Amino acid sequence: MEKIKGGVTAAKGFEAASLAAGIRYQGREDMAMIFSKTPCECAGTFTTNVVKAACVLWDKDIVESGNPMHAVVVNSGIANACTGNEGFEACINTAEAVEEALGVPHDTVAVASTGVIGMQLPIDKIVDGVGAMSKVLSDSIEAGEYASKAIMTTDTVNKEIAVTFTIGGKTVTLGGMSKGSGMIHPNMCTMLGFLTTDIAISKKLLQKALSEVVKDTFNMITVDGDTSTNDTLLIMANGLAGNPKVDKENDDYVTFKTALCYVCEDLARRMAADGEGASKLFTAKVVNARNKEDARILARSVVGSNLSKAAIYGCDANFGRFLCAMGYSGADFDQEKVELYFESEAGKLKVFDKGSLPAFDEDLAKEIMKASEVTVLIDMNDGNAAATAWGCDLTEKYVEINADYRS
Amino acid sequence: MEKIKGGVTAAKGFEAASLAAGIRYQGREDMAMIFSKTPCECAGTFTTNVVKAACVLWDKDIVESGNPMHAVVVNSGIANACTGNEGFEACINTAEAVEEALGVPHDTVAVASTGVIGMQLPIDKIVDGVGAMSKVLSDSIEAGEYASKAIMTTDTVNKEIAVTFTIGGKTVTLGGMSKGSGMIHPNMCTMLGFLTTDIAISKKLLQKALSEVVKDTFNMITVDGDTSTNDTLLIMANGLAGNPKVDKENDDYVTFKTALCYVCEDLARRMAADGEGASKLFTAKVVNARNKEDARILARSVVGSNLSKAAIYGCDANFGRFLCAMGYSGADFDQEKVELYFESEAGKLKVFDKGSLPAFDEDLAKEIMKASEVTVLIDMNDGNAAATAWGCDLTEKYVEINADYRS
Repeated sequence: MEKIKGGVTAAKGFEAASLAAGIRYQGREDMAMIFSKTPCECAGTFTTNVVKAACVLWDKDIVESGNPMHAVVVNSGIANACTGNEGFEACINTAEAVEEALGVPHDTVAVASTGVIGMQLPIDKIVDGVGAMSKVLSDSIEAGEYASKAIMTTDTVNKEIAVTFTIGGKTVTLGGMSKGSGMIHPNMCTMLGFLTTDIAISKKLLQKALSEVVKDTFNMITVDGDTSTNDTLLIMANGLAGNPKVDKENDDYVTFKTALCYVCEDLARRMAADGEGASKLFTAKVVNARNKEDARILARSVVGSNLSKAAIYGCDANFGRFLCAMGYSGADFDQEKVELYFESEAGKLKVFDKGSLPAFDEDLAKEIMKASEVTVLIDMNDGNAAATAWGCDLTEKYVEINADYRS
Repeated sequence: MEKIKGGVTAAKGFEAASLAAGIRYQGREDMAMIFSKTPCECAGTFTTNVVKAACVLWDKDIVESGNPMHAVVVNSGIANACTGNEGFEACINTAEAVEEALGVPHDTVAVASTGVIGMQLPIDKIVDGVGAMSKVLSDSIEAGEYASKAIMTTDTVNKEIAVTFTIGGKTVTLGGMSKGSGMIHPNMCTMLGFLTTDIAISKKLLQKALSEVVKDTFNMITVDGDTSTNDTLLIMANGLAGNPKVDKENDDYVTFKTALCYVCEDLARRMAADGEGASKLFTAKVVNARNKEDARILARSVVGSNLSKAAIYGCDANFGRFLCAMGYSGADFDQEKVELYFESEAGKLKVFDKGSLPAFDEDLAKEIMKASEVTVLIDMNDGNAAATAWGCDLTEKYVEINADYRS
């Protein structure tokens, strides 16, 4: 597997476009579109929130229908959630605009929105935007990059990645983009993410790989514990790589899944690091746990704790908060077996040792925690399972951003 | 029922004392003691965190043993959690110091600690403190007030309350004190709280009343979603009111339970309002829900959401965040039935109406949300159950307090 430049336009046959449609932001692009003339197998994972945005319902229908997918239209600024029938009509109108402009059936067009909940989309601007973007679709690296910028809300950097790998002697490309960066909490997939690949693969295995990979990547990040109404992760596979079709769980499937996991983990980590107001990436790595599910629960509880996040921000090796967060996670364990370390490029330090309190160098602890990526390593000494979760610190900036978001 | 001045020393036969023992704070009292020469029936509820402080384990043993209770010794500054055998020894030594000073068996002495996790108590200071406090016990209102101040950590105000009511022609008194104000999340009882009463009641009914009342009071508050390792709520009943003993669930029991609920709700609300960094009390009131459990889950999810809390701080009527928090709460519902209002002394405003978005006066919304107590009223229009949860806004101050707590 090789990392290459690019994002959603890296794979063969995928084009993108973006546009400043003036939906709610001024002076920046706020619409994007991904298009494949060749029909794609598609798979998706969606928010588990009972309050689902109109576009989530629309996309779920497409993914579950077995239809191919040709396009995704995304806007930032308004989430099209809690918008009733009018919101659902907006999805249909958007998809119909793509049908009119590009000649693909409207039920092969996914839509996604992110931004303020409880506000109607200016549907005329969206429809006009689709028309305009349809005329400037491009398979250039730059088109993909601009698309990844157009879908940002409070993100401070865009997130895209692409890799190539070989299946049956053919080079296959997988690329993607995603956006955060608030209302992020692991419960299905927690954000907007779009992946494109030219692999030939069955729909069943595409969905299987995506659903499994999500558990250890996008579902393991948290920014603020709020599971969004709009979380959507879509993957489109148009088969243009010309590889022998992957329709069994053989080595080729494993090769694809490994690449998919790499891409998803990279995007997920970057979303956590760019969490609203974040000054650093905060990773919790649980090892030697009783089972995988416990390892996941423990790691997520630690990176999700406001008090742990504030301690990371303050470079305070207040390890009791981390143990406390493990304690209320829902996983059962014996603190007399637990070892806890702080780790970064500046070093590694044990701060809790199976129920006893080792004397540790507070200055070194501060140094370790000052790094831009800090890991809490938790050795449960109680089995063989491991899991990693990614989050960020809690800063005054998070409060500033969210006390005044809508206005 | 009548509200009277006082706290834990209001009921007959209860004395208190407090002391600056220099455990971790300087220039303030950090130890308190409650004592009843007459043995008390006792009941308690404790943290559900797997990582339980040594004192929680000690107190649970006493409450579950059926022993009477004579005293509680409390310290602030260090939580005696994650402290292994040495921490448990500290509990025994503290209780033995009370036995030596006051002649009551050490297994009738509860202990409670609050503060930094993962640090050993200076046990000599604690033992000396018990000796000193034992000599100055007083049943004065002031002694109770000082005790309620000595147990504070990041609290900005002390919390105490007392009421009287009549059972069988006798005046019964119930008083209490509690402290917050971080690591507060509803899961059993969420803080330290101590209630004293001179009612004559069976241990069984005392525990039953406490366990039931906690569900709608202390378990309905949240500050930061972190369930502490030390949460403890104890009630001591010495029977000195001389009422006919309450040992059946009759009218007298209901009278007592009503008073208990009033006292617990008052303390719980004040803990929420004094949450770390809070600038206002944030109440979520769910009405007409399918069932009580759903009502509780929905109300708690709303007051627990970082994004809702930040919107309350910013006086931003961003109602989508509240619907989003309801959506991921775990309770199922139909958003097409939900009505959502913001309410305070400045007025009441409907912002979401069964799936549609009513135009509302943004200036009035701001006025309503500027009040020091803001309520989100959520009408589910789907049944008869109701629940109220109390929290606070999320401010930069919360981050400041917790980024630099231990140092």
